[in-house]
Amino acid sequence: MQSLKRTKIVDLIHCTEFGSTVNVKGWVRTRRGSKNVNFIALNDGSTIKNVQIVADVEQFDAEMLKQITTGACLSVVGTLVESQGAGQASEIQATAIEVLGTCDADFPMQKKGQTFEYMRTHAHMRLRTNTFGAVFRIRHNMAMAIHRYFHEHGFFYFHTPIITASDAEGAGQMFQVTTQDLNNLPKTEEGQVDYANDFFGKQASLTVSGQLEGELGATALGAIYTFGPTFRAENSNTPRHLAEFWMIEPEVAFNDITDNMDLAEDFIKYCIRWALENCKDDLEFLNNMVDKTLLERLHFVVNNNFLRLTYTEGIEVLQKAIAEGRKFEFPVTWGTDLSSEHERFLVEEHFKCPIILTDYPKEIKAFYMKQNEDGKTVRAMDVLFPQIGEIIGGSEREESYDKLVARIEELHIPMKDMWWYLDTRKFGTCPHSGFGLGFERLILFVTGMQNIRDVIPFPRTPRSAEF
Amino acid sequence: MQSLKRTKIVDLIHCTEFGSTVNVKGWVRTRRGSKNVNFIALNDGSTIKNVQIVADVEQFDAEMLKQITTGACLSVVGTLVESQGAGQASEIQATAIEVLGTCDADFPMQKKGQTFEYMRTHAHMRLRTNTFGAVFRIRHNMAMAIHRYFHEHGFFYFHTPIITASDAEGAGQMFQVTTQDLNNLPKTEEGQVDYANDFFGKQASLTVSGQLEGELGATALGAIYTFGPTFRAENSNTPRHLAEFWMIEPEVAFNDITDNMDLAEDFIKYCIRWALENCKDDLEFLNNMVDKTLLERLHFVVNNNFLRLTYTEGIEVLQKAIAEGRKFEFPVTWGTDLSSEHERFLVEEHFKCPIILTDYPKEIKAFYMKQNEDGKTVRAMDVLFPQIGEIIGGSEREESYDKLVARIEELHIPMKDMWWYLDTRKFGTCPHSGFGLGFERLILFVTGMQNIRDVIPFPRTPRSAEF
Repeated sequence: MQSLKRTKIVDLIHCTEFGSTVNVKGWVRTRRGSKNVNFIALNDGSTIKNVQIVADVEQFDAEMLKQITTGACLSVVGTLVESQGAGQASEIQATAIEVLGTCDADFPMQKKGQTFEYMRTHAHMRLRTNTFGAVFRIRHNMAMAIHRYFHEHGFFYFHTPIITASDAEGAGQMFQVTTQDLNNLPKTEEGQVDYANDFFGKQASLTVSGQLEGELGATALGAIYTFGPTFRAENSNTPRHLAEFWMIEPEVAFNDITDNMDLAEDFIKYCIRWALENCKDDLEFLNNMVDKTLLERLHFVVNNNFLRLTYTEGIEVLQKAIAEGRKFEFPVTWGTDLSSEHERFLVEEHFKCPIILTDYPKEIKAFYMKQNEDGKTVRAMDVLFPQIGEIIGGSEREESYDKLVARIEELHIPMKDMWWYLDTRKFGTCPHSGFGLGFERLILFVTGMQNIRDVIPFPRTPRSAEF
Repeated sequence: MQSLKRTKIVDLIHCTEFGSTVNVKGWVRTRRGSKNVNFIALNDGSTIKNVQIVADVEQFDAEMLKQITTGACLSVVGTLVESQGAGQASEIQATAIEVLGTCDADFPMQKKGQTFEYMRTHAHMRLRTNTFGAVFRIRHNMAMAIHRYFHEHGFFYFHTPIITASDAEGAGQMFQVTTQDLNNLPKTEEGQVDYANDFFGKQASLTVSGQLEGELGATALGAIYTFGPTFRAENSNTPRHLAEFWMIEPEVAFNDITDNMDLAEDFIKYCIRWALENCKDDLEFLNNMVDKTLLERLHFVVNNNFLRLTYTEGIEVLQKAIAEGRKFEFPVTWGTDLSSEHERFLVEEHFKCPIILTDYPKEIKAFYMKQNEDGKTVRAMDVLFPQIGEIIGGSEREESYDKLVARIEELHIPMKDMWWYLDTRKFGTCPHSGFGLGFERLILFVTGMQNIRDVIPFPRTPRSAEF
């Protein structure tokens, strides 16, 4: 059997060389049959489709056949034949079966119809199910689409640091990183922890965003993007929050807010189009099994222009709706952030298309955003999607050294950690813009999954860092 | 000027539509000239090449011209003309110049010929130099090559966790991650730190390798690769070590050690070929300025088969050389790890080609490697390169549950953290193999740079987490 090259199932299902001898390897999904013939559905992870193995019982050792249970790993040699049954074009008439690995009876993915909650507690084995196979093949494809898009458009992939000694945007609680022995912490004379002998000689944390360093890249290489892990130590036990997630942050020199909106819309449509073109089988499965409106929603986003309006206009629409009797849980007042219900009303009920909201009140946005002439708003932009709400957040950046410093002082951000960032405005400053996309938010949208813990292989959440 | 679309310099240098009006934006590298005419070398990061701007002094405001210093940011409109000077095909006869950002006189990249050590202390601005522009464009291209290679070969990009509660392979000291207030740590009754209320409810660290989780992916999806940050808290101040670096770890179900060697060789040749084909200008610059043997070495690796021999054969060659008078700093004895001088002797002096060494003594390799029948060695492989020494390390994995458990017990590795890993051997185990490539090691090799701190934008090393 060694001399025959293994064929992946993703290639085999398109093969029509009936009569040829093939070798497939994979894991048993199901086995059924009669006294005379067994039908084994084998999957190797390369596609959601199984190949059907037909085994004439009398040709094989009975003890070996007993080992062919759900989850067992097989190498099968046989003849590729046209399938008699429905649902597949071909099947394999087995001539030799080797059990590479038996499967203990307590295999956690044995039964059908287990809940996602249950499978989350067996995240190391859920990868072998149809749903999670589909999700993670799509996740792979979305990463490919992202790299392709930026490479084709002249961006450079730029690795911003994961461990940082400065809190980039105050975007939430951070994880501290240390090599000190916590049972034996050195103290200063004032009784505080002494970081002099910690690994970095000072307090260090995990990054909450690569944007500020990304701006250093963009103002040198012209256009960069990051794609790396990001951390938030918020104690949020929701289907929307992860403590560790992946973020994509493009940053472009000479782009203004309009260029930034054009980029965001073109980029995300490219990604979704990529999924529609490259993940057909997996999307069809998810559309059937997880979310019957998935494909419709993906086509809808690809085929519609994103409506662009200001935050102020958005508030007016919401207030008009309230005046006409629409009820919301949270109040709508100019100057406060929109909640998810407001965003989804605008996208799903009122305008019925993806929206880009711009020019938010400066008080609810980060210090580095470009200040508008009205003195009240900044050139921020949020892209709002059906089901998801905000999928992208970005802005044109304040390029004026004086305005930026004034805003930093206004917000009492410690200036000492910001010298290198401010240097970009001292040495050949330029207009520039960028945005951030939470990778798992995109995967939620593209797969129709409802819980963010189900679109990353091993989710990190409060009290959970398993596997 | 707003209505004319900006042209990137990387596109402009190939443009032969002389007489057309163009807009370029970028940073001033140099300015020279006479009383009548100024020559400005402008760079926008899209390529190592500058475009020459020719400005007739009398046509422009004298105060504006004074602002055109090294590092200033300009938008220039002008006519594309055939160049009179050597070294470039075209230049721009300026009709309008806007200074987008002046550059303060203390611009740290003002002077030529500054040392890499100096530039490292200004890592936020070194990105605007020729050398670091070239290095980081090549770094981008290597990342693209890696993703392309694996995607084209049916691998899925798989995100293994960064924060982990288990020490994967005992591969060195780890950074601890916590949300507790270190000035106010809760203690257990025994006086030890109490992790019950830490974010994950237990002690957590930064990953040293994604391999074990990668094996979960490979034994479900068939073939995966990781590409993410990895951390080692070793107090190593060398040109070879980073506390935070990026690693690529492919893992493939059904691959044996020979398949693994074939994959490693094919993969790394693909990456280097990609550099030769896609980074010509940057490589030529580095070959001229940093390392005159760079291109020769890259072609050498692409054009030669990697020699495959066992560790034992390698030891014999070294011992024979010693017997013939060759001196080494470290002794050569079967059972100990080769040092860099030994590896380089084999590659550069003796065999004069890249080498793959296999079948190392089990004592110097990790617990998960497949045990050979001799009871002494494991199916490990190291790929050794000129200049770099070990660039890839990998192995076939032990697929036998019993042998793996025996080895774990022999090494006193805590079994309680390993249940999920062992499950892969209980439920349909299969032969599988993989390897790890340190991304920065690859970039060192492909750029000819000598210090690993110069091939990552913002290096993290003992006592240094700047920017």
